[in-house]
Amino acid sequence: MIGSEGQRVRSATRYTYLGPEGTFTEAALRTLPEAATRELVPMVSVPAALDAVRAGEAAAALVPIENSVEGGVTATLDELATGEPLMIYREVLLPIAFALLVRPGTRLEDVKTVTGHPVAQPQVRNWLAAHLPDAAWESSASNADGARLVREGRYDAAFAGEFAAATYGLEPLVTDIHDAQNAQTRFVLAGRPARPAARTGADRTSLVVWLGDDHPGALLELLQEFAARGVNLMRIESRPTGEGMGRYCFSVDCEGHITDRRVGEALMGLKRTCPKVRFLGSYPRAGVDPDDRSGALGTVRPGTSDRDFVAAADWLAHCQDGRA
Amino acid sequence: MIGSEGQRVRSATRYTYLGPEGTFTEAALRTLPEAATRELVPMVSVPAALDAVRAGEAAAALVPIENSVEGGVTATLDELATGEPLMIYREVLLPIAFALLVRPGTRLEDVKTVTGHPVAQPQVRNWLAAHLPDAAWESSASNADGARLVREGRYDAAFAGEFAAATYGLEPLVTDIHDAQNAQTRFVLAGRPARPAARTGADRTSLVVWLGDDHPGALLELLQEFAARGVNLMRIESRPTGEGMGRYCFSVDCEGHITDRRVGEALMGLKRTCPKVRFLGSYPRAGVDPDDRSGALGTVRPGTSDRDFVAAADWLAHCQDGRA
Amino acid sequence: MIGSEGQRVRSATRYTYLGPEGTFTEAALRTLPEAATRELVPMVSVPAALDAVRAGEAAAALVPIENSVEGGVTATLDELATGEPLMIYREVLLPIAFALLVRPGTRLEDVKTVTGHPVAQPQVRNWLAAHLPDAAWESSASNADGARLVREGRYDAAFAGEFAAATYGLEPLVTDIHDAQNAQTRFVLAGRPARPAARTGADRTSLVVWLGDDHPGALLELLQEFAARGVNLMRIESRPTGEGMGRYCFSVDCEGHITDRRVGEALMGLKRTCPKVRFLGSYPRAGVDPDDRSGALGTVRPGTSDRDFVAAADWLAHCQDGRA
Amino acid sequence: MIGSEGQRVRSATRYTYLGPEGTFTEAALRTLPEAATRELVPMVSVPAALDAVRAGEAAAALVPIENSVEGGVTATLDELATGEPLMIYREVLLPIAFALLVRPGTRLEDVKTVTGHPVAQPQVRNWLAAHLPDAAWESSASNADGARLVREGRYDAAFAGEFAAATYGLEPLVTDIHDAQNAQTRFVLAGRPARPAARTGADRTSLVVWLGDDHPGALLELLQEFAARGVNLMRIESRPTGEGMGRYCFSVDCEGHITDRRVGEALMGLKRTCPKVRFLGSYPRAGVDPDDRSGALGTVRPGTSDRDFVAAADWLAHCQDGRA
Repeated sequence: MIGSEGQRVRSATRYTYLGPEGTFTEAALRTLPEAATRELVPMVSVPAALDAVRAGEAAAALVPIENSVEGGVTATLDELATGEPLMIYREVLLPIAFALLVRPGTRLEDVKTVTGHPVAQPQVRNWLAAHLPDAAWESSASNADGARLVREGRYDAAFAGEFAAATYGLEPLVTDIHDAQNAQTRFVLAGRPARPAARTGADRTSLVVWLGDDHPGALLELLQEFAARGVNLMRIESRPTGEGMGRYCFSVDCEGHITDRRVGEALMGLKRTCPKVRFLGSYPRAGVDPDDRSGALGTVRPGTSDRDFVAAADWLAHCQDGRA
Repeated sequence: MIGSEGQRVRSATRYTYLGPEGTFTEAALRTLPEAATRELVPMVSVPAALDAVRAGEAAAALVPIENSVEGGVTATLDELATGEPLMIYREVLLPIAFALLVRPGTRLEDVKTVTGHPVAQPQVRNWLAAHLPDAAWESSASNADGARLVREGRYDAAFAGEFAAATYGLEPLVTDIHDAQNAQTRFVLAGRPARPAARTGADRTSLVVWLGDDHPGALLELLQEFAARGVNLMRIESRPTGEGMGRYCFSVDCEGHITDRRVGEALMGLKRTCPKVRFLGSYPRAGVDPDDRSGALGTVRPGTSDRDFVAAADWLAHCQDGRA
Repeated sequence: MIGSEGQRVRSATRYTYLGPEGTFTEAALRTLPEAATRELVPMVSVPAALDAVRAGEAAAALVPIENSVEGGVTATLDELATGEPLMIYREVLLPIAFALLVRPGTRLEDVKTVTGHPVAQPQVRNWLAAHLPDAAWESSASNADGARLVREGRYDAAFAGEFAAATYGLEPLVTDIHDAQNAQTRFVLAGRPARPAARTGADRTSLVVWLGDDHPGALLELLQEFAARGVNLMRIESRPTGEGMGRYCFSVDCEGHITDRRVGEALMGLKRTCPKVRFLGSYPRAGVDPDDRSGALGTVRPGTSDRDFVAAADWLAHCQDGRA
Repeated sequence: MIGSEGQRVRSATRYTYLGPEGTFTEAALRTLPEAATRELVPMVSVPAALDAVRAGEAAAALVPIENSVEGGVTATLDELATGEPLMIYREVLLPIAFALLVRPGTRLEDVKTVTGHPVAQPQVRNWLAAHLPDAAWESSASNADGARLVREGRYDAAFAGEFAAATYGLEPLVTDIHDAQNAQTRFVLAGRPARPAARTGADRTSLVVWLGDDHPGALLELLQEFAARGVNLMRIESRPTGEGMGRYCFSVDCEGHITDRRVGEALMGLKRTCPKVRFLGSYPRAGVDPDDRSGALGTVRPGTSDRDFVAAADWLAHCQDGRA
């Protein structure tokens, strides 16, 4: 709980994020230009960061949603799928590379115990085996928390972002550690529902779709609603609905913007035929050069551009009026 | 050529049909209430009947389009697919049963030669084998023409509709002859393009779709445009485009009316993705009790009623406005 | 009826065809090398030609099955779909160009009446309008029959194959007449069921498939049985089953040979899921250079070659044995 | 590392599981009849439990794979998808209900601090809010570990299985705590590859499928390989391949056994068309009454039973031999 009286006035300029300070999430947040003029408030968990937005205590929250090594961040997926609706307005892609943080003066051969977030462990496992085969690993609540525990002397070294060193008075002994090539985490900036971010030509649309229980081909039909309109899927992840084993909803990202006709028609198709659909926002894809955004349209399947949709609607009207 | 000067004034009350008089087409035309107040003009061929409409010499033409034994009437399918556009406003279903027409006084044992349209022959083959195994068959240009030739003494008997007997001064010696159970012919009333017939709740929509040449899965995609919107196909027939072996267009009938949202969206899907689509009309299905027309809606797949489409469009607008 | 006693001995070397002499069918038949050593017997109709084979009075029959302008030859499609089974072993493609045959000495300006098979008429309509706008057309039972009637003086000119001139003592006044570019007719050589023609690498497989009555998506599923195995459709034609309006079976040609694994699996899929399937043969595609036959394999979709099928079967066996 | 010399002899009777003692995994393992005669060895992690099997130090490992509230257990999914192959031979479904374990004598009003595995927290959140709104939650490494920490006095109460009370000298103060109805965890027993478990008529088949990178419709095609053979999907979960954002493989369970023809053909279809497929086993579905196993066959789609496959293969052979 951040808020108390008087604070609500300031909530419009406040962004929460998955804390503590010194995490990759904070680093991702600081890549946003507007972060410089916002009050950035670390929260103890993804639900806490998002609930502050729901409660009107913050304008938006930055939380991790997907990691190229570990997969979907289920707390984020589930929080966005349920409860009071939120919407995604931005995404941030951050390359994930770890530094081994130590108290000043520590040498590699002195490191007997290491710590880090459980999610970090599989991403540095090979490096550990090669360089510190005898060091004992213990998990900490976050990478930043691990750094704090090193500061306090509980462990010899912590895996964390290099940027966390200064915050915790540590030194990066080794940098750029990552077992997987191209490891990245994707973060989303979520706020209360409002008009989606403007279309840029290289956008992503997120939604959650619940399928009917009794229908073996329901997932196939979900995909066909996209395929029938030439809309490419970028990500699909099943999540339990909590109603019992074998019941799932699907967290889905597709290419394009809700104001693209092909995307709009696909979404309406899902809305008509699935028990429940939650729209989570359309927003610019990260990692696309601004000058190339319109170029991304080159991948649109023939017959599915806005122009094709408008021409077809005109033709239909002509047919209905007997002028075709 | 019917028209000459002065006639054009009367063309609005003139219907052409595939003649000559006494054919099943005339019998089908006379089942239409308005036929009583129209000038009914037999034409020598399907193209002639339709060209009279195109030339403004008649308001509409009734022509056969499909027979439950012989299949599609290719002259009609091809005439509607090409040339100046026409549209279908009505269909008529006529049970096909033949009478054996003879000159008065002829007995069955006197019948040594029989005639009829080539299309009639396979529909009476079994009856002939059973009752007139030694009679010789020769084809005539139409059933009615066969009756005329019997009148003139060239053959002993003709297969034709019982209603043709009076016209040609003959007697029906045997009636209700038909090898196949439920043999029917479907006729369509075609006019110049105008607003389609009003929706009744039990309608049929006809179109012609050309597929891209180079795409093996193109027919599958055509069908999926219908399936994705829950629109049932009633008939599909391939026709050569005339551009060489292996190039086809498809004459298609689906359930529903062009003003049904699901049908409209399917048609727009075809328009967007196929090189060419010709809309041939939406019109009431024959053979449906007027009181049951709305009941036919019971077969609509969940999520594809007009109500579902409108609700989904509302939802999309809400999402785009940030109010979902 | 050809056969009488003593003839059966010779039936193994007899081929029937759709007569009379001088038709395109005869010309097509004579392109087959073995025709030189067969007795070629013209028959009055497609059913008659095929029934002679069924009755053991001929080894095979050549009949037209498809014309690039007029479409499927329904008599052939229906005869092969029903009755005692027959199989196709060869196909012949014949370019269709007409000659205007006249009695020696006739000049173009003398031609007031022309005749020909009804199917020929739409293929020469434009030529007639341009060169003989005032000539009256009357149909004859076949192109060859029309030539005979010109010989007898009933008409001034007949459209027929140039090769028919000598047979009927006429002269080709104009040759190479054809409104459509690339007009072709496809003929098939049908015999009693036996081992299919050997695989060549560029083959065609023909079948007839009946769909369940009550299933709107049945045609889509038929196509998916092919698509799921990467088998391209070459032709699909709906034909009424004779059981009433709206009931169809489908005459289908696909690329490949029944011994190609992908074709075999698709056929088994149809056999399992459709009420009735009739295999009509696998045979070399006409119009493919013998040296290019294996090259046609280039169009096989990845994962659907025989090699892929065999490798997958091996893998499955390994999995079932616990060795994968 | 369990093994040392001499132990390998006993490895055939040793089962590892995700420890420590007192977890739900141990409770699940003890539901297996053969557990009574096995040495049950708790391991520190899922990878450790499975690696012991790979190393030959244990015959099998029981690990959680899916929870109806929290979703897939990614450590298990990823371990089975990569590294030296393992296979699943059994599954166990365990209802998940927590007990609040305390030191003897503790009353509910005395509980100020509670602990448990992070996964337990969302499953008891509502209960906590209702009954212990002021208690502070801290996560522990496992539910059993939390119980140990209560024993040591670090926390007042731990959420764990009721069965863990005795092990740790605690008392269940409240039992049967679960926010979600029907919460269940599914566990799998994995061993080295061998012949799959025998078919029972109510089976599940697990596999991992990698899709081609460059193909937007690849997931749709994966599903169609199942749908084309009437095989129902039970679970599908995307997992990153580790090769970068946007690259996924799919962990899939379908109904049926690898020796069911429809399943075998679907698997071969995947093998042919996907870059990589790993078969993870066919095994009896848990939670099905043994007497009802054959009854589960009632859900097989017409045309996809083994009988249908065999009949179709016979028909194909007849066609290929000219006997159809």
